[in-house]
This record gives sequence, structure tokens and C-alpha cells, in this order.
Amino acid sequence: MASKAGGVSREDGERRNRADDVIQAAVETFHDKGYSATSIQDVADRVGVLKGSLYHYIDSKEDLLARIFEESDRQSFALMEEMEALDVPAVDRLREFARLWSLWYLENVERASLYFNEWKHLTGERLAAVTQTRHEYEARVERMIRACKADGGADPDLDTHYACFFILSAINGLPIWYRRGGPDSAEHISEVYADMIVATVTGSKGHKRPRAKKRKAKAKAA
Amino acid sequence: MASKAGGVSREDGERRNRADDVIQAAVETFHDKGYSATSIQDVADRVGVLKGSLYHYIDSKEDLLARIFEESDRQSFALMEEMEALDVPAVDRLREFARLWSLWYLENVERASLYFNEWKHLTGERLAAVTQTRHEYEARVERMIRACKADGGADPDLDTHYACFFILSAINGLPIWYRRGGPDSAEHISEVYADMIVATVTGSKGHKRPRAKKRKAKAKAA
Repeated sequence: MASKAGGVSREDGERRNRADDVIQAAVETFHDKGYSATSIQDVADRVGVLKGSLYHYIDSKEDLLARIFEESDRQSFALMEEMEALDVPAVDRLREFARLWSLWYLENVERASLYFNEWKHLTGERLAAVTQTRHEYEARVERMIRACKADGGADPDLDTHYACFFILSAINGLPIWYRRGGPDSAEHISEVYADMIVATVTGSKGHKRPRAKKRKAKAKAA
Repeated sequence: MASKAGGVSREDGERRNRADDVIQAAVETFHDKGYSATSIQDVADRVGVLKGSLYHYIDSKEDLLARIFEESDRQSFALMEEMEALDVPAVDRLREFARLWSLWYLENVERASLYFNEWKHLTGERLAAVTQTRHEYEARVERMIRACKADGGADPDLDTHYACFFILSAINGLPIWYRRGGPDSAEHISEVYADMIVATVTGSKGHKRPRAKKRKAKAKAA
């Protein structure tokens, strides 16, 4: 449905803008009421159109949810490609990815929350597509972490598979606790997160397996 | 309803065991079907009793959810107290907490998932109680991280508030991707997570703010 750049007729442009409005209204309504409790009528009310005219843009409520996810995925893959093209050491690339991806979450709290809370409402091909996209994304993040190991920037003992889940989970948690208008800017928080993510892969040097150490310390204290 | 140790009559003991069965059946049913789609009848069916007899143990479906959370909270606070009593350097205490708390998540995937997916169904006093407990818990984890900074074990620039959210989010993500019977044991994964959590607080040394560096590298490449 997206018009090609350079050849956008006025009608196409308006249609696309209205489609964007529909998506944005759906993001807000699903976020406020939850996907299950939201009706197409609620979304139409928020856009300010009749319910019937929403069906020019979407097939169903599930279609609307899938469109939101596709848009989020497009943005996340665009960021990923931008990062992969950076000509910098792997750890700096990871840091920049971590910073910008955290920032995206903080600036798109509602979309990010939907992604993690409501994906289970997709079915069939739509669910398969979102799942595959998520796996591809995870694989590319893991490749970025592996590159840090390969060029000596990361802890040589790092398990890149679990590091990938660890880092993505930490970022996924942002919409849960972040509130707009808090004491720190989204930019500041994403810098702090980027530092912690780099720390995760560069490793703790000398703090591995302290369980034996702990027991010794206990024995000493006794 | 819990009987005091040493003074448990046979009737009390049976009652408690049945209450445990009810909670466990509720965990499984809520996890499989989702809280909203589950009826008290579904839970009764899983326990193998008549619906009416469930009301000896609980007041409502919401009460059942609250009981599950209370039990999870009791376990998490018990672990916290055990950790706070350890006579070891603060970073080793944090590591042991991170390891055992990750392990709890992996061994209680269903309860952990419920906690994060279904808490929003609590209302009134129950919601207030769970929210307060979570805040207390976060405050104690943050205190543990601050102790690492105070005794020189952590990155002196670490933001302990965000580090706390970061670490708890990383652990909260475990039930999302972990599947029982995967290639690595829960014990192994929790060791790996403990290492990464310690790395998060001990810091990345020399990898701070590489954005200026990136721009230089880009200029060089151009």
C-alpha cells in the first residue's frame, strides 16, 4: 500500500497519511484498553471516522495489530542495517546499537509494550511472520555480539547466545518502568543502558565463579 | 491459613496440602489459558474437586491470583534475606543472588510468567499490596548494588537505580525464551546470567562514550 517515493499522487499521499493515523490510533487504543478489550469501533472513534471506512485500510482487528508490528519491525531492521554499515570496532557498533535501540523503546513506549504484551493474539501466517522476524532480529544481534568476541573486544568466555537474550530482555524491560517526564531524559537513560550493555559483553574480569571464594570467605569469618 | 510448625493437626495438614494443590492448579491453568479466559470451574476441574469446594480456600478468581503472587513474593523475600545474611564481599553477594534468583525463574517459569503478564488483573488493595511489595524488592536489590559500589567492587560511575531495573529486566526475560529440556541446564544458565550481571555492575572500563570515537573512525574511513 506504501506509495513509491517521487510518484506519490495527492490522493495516494492522503490515503497513506490516513493509514498512518489509523495505525497510530490503534497503537494508543490497544495500549490504553488492551488488545482484547478494544473494538474496531474504539479505533474508529479515536481516528474520528465511521467504523466502515476503517475497512479501506485494514481487514480486521488482527490485521491492525500485525500492521503495527510490521511497522515496528521495519524500524528495527532499518536501525540494524545502519549499525551494520558503521565502520567502527565491533564493541562501539554494539554500543551505538544499544543506545539507539534503547532510545527507540523510550520514545515508542506504547508500541514496544504492545509488541511484548499482545503478540500472542496473532494467529496463523501473521504469527509465523512475526515470530520469524523476531528470530532473524535476535540472530543479527547475536552476530553483532559475536563480532565483539572475534575482534577481542568482548570477554572470551562470553556465551553470545545467552548474552543476546540477556541484553534484549534488559531493553525490553524499559517500557515497563519508564515514565515520560521523569527526572532523566530518554537520551541520558539510553546512554546509561548502552554502557551497561557494553559492560555485559566486555566481562567482569576476576569475578567469575566466586562460589568457592564465598565458601572460603565464610570459613574465614567463622 | 498456614499452620504453625510443630502444631499441625492432621486436618490442618490436609487442608494446607489441598490449598497448595489449588494454588498449583491455578498456576498451571492461568499459564495455559491466560487469567482472563480461565474460570474457577477450570481450576476445580484440574484439582479434581467440585467448584463449590474451591470456595473453602479462596474468595474469588482474583483472590487466587493474589495468593499465587503472595507465595512468589514470600519465596523471593526469603532468598533476599538469605543473601543479605551472607558474610562475603558485596559483589559476591550480588552474584549469588543473581544466580539463585535466575535459577528460581527457570525452575518456576509458569509462576514467573504470571507475575509479569497478569498482575494488571489485580485491583484495589490487592494491586496496591503487590505493587508495594515489588517496590520494596527493587529497593533491596538496588541496596545490594549500592553496596558493591560502596566497597569498591563496582564501576564508580554506575547508576545503581538504572542498573537495578536493567538487571531485574534481564532476569524477568528468562521465562520468555527458556524452554525446559533445552541443551543447557537451568543451573548452567543461571551461572552464565550471574556472570553477566556481575559484569554489568563492575563496568566496561574504557568503553564509555565511544560516540566521539565513532565519528573519528568514520572520518578516517572516509
